[in-house]
Amino acid sequence: MNARPSLAVAQRSLGDPSLSYPLLPPLTRGCPETSTPSVAYPLEVDYDYARVPGDLFAQAPLPDIARWSPLLPPLAAPTLGEGGTPLLEFDGVYVKDESRNPTWSHKDRLNRVTVSAAVAAGAPGVVVASSGNHGASAAAYAARAGLPAVVLASAESPPAVQTFVRAYGAKVLTVPADRRWPLLREIVDELGYHPVSNQSVTHTGHPYGPEGYKTIAYEVFAQLGRVPAAVFTPTGYGELVYGVWKGFAELHRLGVAAGTPAVFTCEPAAGGPTARALATGEPAVIVPAGHSAAYAILCDVGGHRGVRAVRDSGGQALLVSDDAMRAAQRELALRGVWQELSGAAGLAAFRALGREFDGPVVCVATSSGFKDLGVGGHRAEVVEDPTWRDAVSPR
Amino acid sequence: MNARPSLAVAQRSLGDPSLSYPLLPPLTRGCPETSTPSVAYPLEVDYDYARVPGDLFAQAPLPDIARWSPLLPPLAAPTLGEGGTPLLEFDGVYVKDESRNPTWSHKDRLNRVTVSAAVAAGAPGVVVASSGNHGASAAAYAARAGLPAVVLASAESPPAVQTFVRAYGAKVLTVPADRRWPLLREIVDELGYHPVSNQSVTHTGHPYGPEGYKTIAYEVFAQLGRVPAAVFTPTGYGELVYGVWKGFAELHRLGVAAGTPAVFTCEPAAGGPTARALATGEPAVIVPAGHSAAYAILCDVGGHRGVRAVRDSGGQALLVSDDAMRAAQRELALRGVWQELSGAAGLAAFRALGREFDGPVVCVATSSGFKDLGVGGHRAEVVEDPTWRDAVSPR
Repeated sequence: MNARPSLAVAQRSLGDPSLSYPLLPPLTRGCPETSTPSVAYPLEVDYDYARVPGDLFAQAPLPDIARWSPLLPPLAAPTLGEGGTPLLEFDGVYVKDESRNPTWSHKDRLNRVTVSAAVAAGAPGVVVASSGNHGASAAAYAARAGLPAVVLASAESPPAVQTFVRAYGAKVLTVPADRRWPLLREIVDELGYHPVSNQSVTHTGHPYGPEGYKTIAYEVFAQLGRVPAAVFTPTGYGELVYGVWKGFAELHRLGVAAGTPAVFTCEPAAGGPTARALATGEPAVIVPAGHSAAYAILCDVGGHRGVRAVRDSGGQALLVSDDAMRAAQRELALRGVWQELSGAAGLAAFRALGREFDGPVVCVATSSGFKDLGVGGHRAEVVEDPTWRDAVSPR
Repeated sequence: MNARPSLAVAQRSLGDPSLSYPLLPPLTRGCPETSTPSVAYPLEVDYDYARVPGDLFAQAPLPDIARWSPLLPPLAAPTLGEGGTPLLEFDGVYVKDESRNPTWSHKDRLNRVTVSAAVAAGAPGVVVASSGNHGASAAAYAARAGLPAVVLASAESPPAVQTFVRAYGAKVLTVPADRRWPLLREIVDELGYHPVSNQSVTHTGHPYGPEGYKTIAYEVFAQLGRVPAAVFTPTGYGELVYGVWKGFAELHRLGVAAGTPAVFTCEPAAGGPTARALATGEPAVIVPAGHSAAYAILCDVGGHRGVRAVRDSGGQALLVSDDAMRAAQRELALRGVWQELSGAAGLAAFRALGREFDGPVVCVATSSGFKDLGVGGHRAEVVEDPTWRDAVSPR
């Protein structure tokens, strides 16, 4: 595919939209002017929207997000065929199955963009702190681009996920949880490795990252032939929900779509920094986090992006219990879609909300069931003298 | 998507192409006339090729194989968005990444078709004997279609795969290996469940199954814009390789493509019934099988389909060692594609062959690394006082 040139022009502060910075270097520690010792504001990417090709949204939503390159930062890293995931309909609810990406989660859309930034910056490597999906995805894209990768992993990851994160040849260091972010900063400072995860007091992450998630909105619009009424996304730091929201907002701004959806952040009830920040009116907060098996989205540190997506879209910040996620996980599995527990948070929150919408509802399902806690933990007993009656006996 | 009607007209014997049978019921025990007590001949599906719509191969290769419905048996079961997988290029070799299917293997293309046959037949359920991918995929499609499924599993499956097979709500019976096929027949006879795996002395499987795999050929043709020179496929019973070959043969027959590729069966050296049958000139054989970690394609019982695909295409039957598969698995992982060992057999065989081709070479990579033996078997040690120097220390 011959990608068209990027129209990215600047980094713009989410703390004060009148503040903008050159596109390079990526401001990976948040907005230097509006951030304070207790709250950091992310940056996002601004484009020359007047020059967006008129036929951009007429194309088929196939894999390789380079097809949307005018509205992405420059893609200097090669593709693994991210995106182009199916939108499935189950009794009127649409499920965007992101387990169909190269490393079987939505994170691949982000890492195509952030590893591209590392390549463009001439960095000697990539570093990421992650409990699973993000680390494996960054390792895969770094490997594809020929860059060394360091993954700072947590010891609590499920065993199958530990194998997964190590599969792509990265240097994986399993370190105590409280050492991960300081060590990441050290590796950035001492080795010049490009960071593709967070370094700030509240979450800002990579300024380019959510741009990759915008492509979910472009695909959903193409697949539905219209804008949905509501989108429910599993939410950790809020990069996914912000990207999806921004994609729909762009479609509206460009006159391609007639409106925008309400977007809903769906966080484990044991944490929920986005819901807390919206409830208290703060830009971003840190909360105590209890226990949840949805480890991929359980956060104590929140960020401003989720707050903005909910507020700007007229959505809502929802909290979901582990039981509700388990029920949604089972509902999806009994329709043939096996998600990790976190991946079912969107559907769980939609079911718990119990609200009718005047238009299609899309639940983003983020990741394969293979990444769940407990996978591989149980060996089946052998039935020694089976007959056909065993096939219909109660379980 | 509004699927166009199927042009399937009959089942045709691979034992004698002048023998054909009505499309229903599917002859799941092989050709009733040409099969003998020691060799069974499969059936395949024949179509009214004269009526294939002229624009069928002009469309984008998106998910949901119903887009190819004129050249498939009737699709009575709903889609999970199978197919539409990316074709990745690594230094001139193309890799068709089938880990991007709904249950993360190529088997989903087959099960959309075979579970459709079960629905069309009005069967009260589906039964399958499988060590992993095939069972999970059949369970997922049966769940989606609202049919009960019984999976006869082997105790040797990796623990993560055991969780996977159980995820979709099927009745999973783990039974001694030598009981699997007799028990499957009992369940078919006593309960009327539709079988989606083999029941004959040499492998014939479901007559419709390989039709689903044809869509790989249609997609590769669209993605390359031409026919490849050679296709290397991981090979167990030979359903995949036959389907891929048939798809290319149809493109040629219909005047869409100028030629056909040579197709190569790639079997673990510890087994290799297809290679043996071709060497001895027999239609299908049973061989002693030794040990291989490529459990998904290690077969003692062979079938006639692989023999036909190799012979008719001018290809070759190749054997690969576990070491060669491990090297290819690592080569793929270091390019960002984590396959189970069996999934790397195609690339392994191409590398071992060391032959140049006058045109593109496609290696089919069948399934996610999460299904491999040994996944989750090793817990990482925690580095207690890490510094940035640990990030660049030798492993």
